[in-house]
Amino acid sequence: MASMASASVAPAGFSYGRPPFSASEKLRRTVVVRAEAINPGIRKTEDKVVDSVVITELNKPLTAYCRCWRSGTFPLCDGSHVKHNKATGDNVGPLLVKKQ
Amino acid sequence: MASMASASVAPAGFSYGRPPFSASEKLRRTVVVRAEAINPGIRKTEDKVVDSVVITELNKPLTAYCRCWRSGTFPLCDGSHVKHNKATGDNVGPLLVKKQ
Repeated sequence: MASMASASVAPAGFSYGRPPFSASEKLRRTVVVRAEAINPGIRKTEDKVVDSVVITELNKPLTAYCRCWRSGTFPLCDGSHVKHNKATGDNVGPLLVKKQ
Repeated sequence: MASMASASVAPAGFSYGRPPFSASEKLRRTVVVRAEAINPGIRKTEDKVVDSVVITELNKPLTAYCRCWRSGTFPLCDGSHVKHNKATGDNVGPLLVKKQ
């Protein structure tokens, strides 16, 4: 987005609250990273989305849990991180819970 | 950010690739959500950050795993989601793994 300020110190997908600084400003500026929400739509009526796994209730040898907040089967992983990573250059992936 | 396009159908922290549509356009438009990376700095040299939990190796009755990508003890939760949620209006939280 051309109108958004950015600078080389910003990680991909993150932007600053003001335009890039001049060369003379660089030595004394304070970088403020503009924070963005990472969950676009999961259980937005809840103040905080917390899930629990009781390991004695796990049936499969391996269960993958979503950490990209884009899974259609949240809190389980459905592979949506692959599309998210391709679209954004991100590198997120699931948490694997293994019975042994 | 005043220069960023947004519309009422955009979840907090997400923006569109073009400015808001006119009333006459609304019936035929296709909404394209502009994707952003959600991991600002964890193991960015890895193509995909995947972690495994072997449940027989868990010592504590409850272990919390980060899903906000801001924990200083990733993949474990250190409570950083609280600051992230306050700063962005987001509602993310950890995955709790319980021995029973």
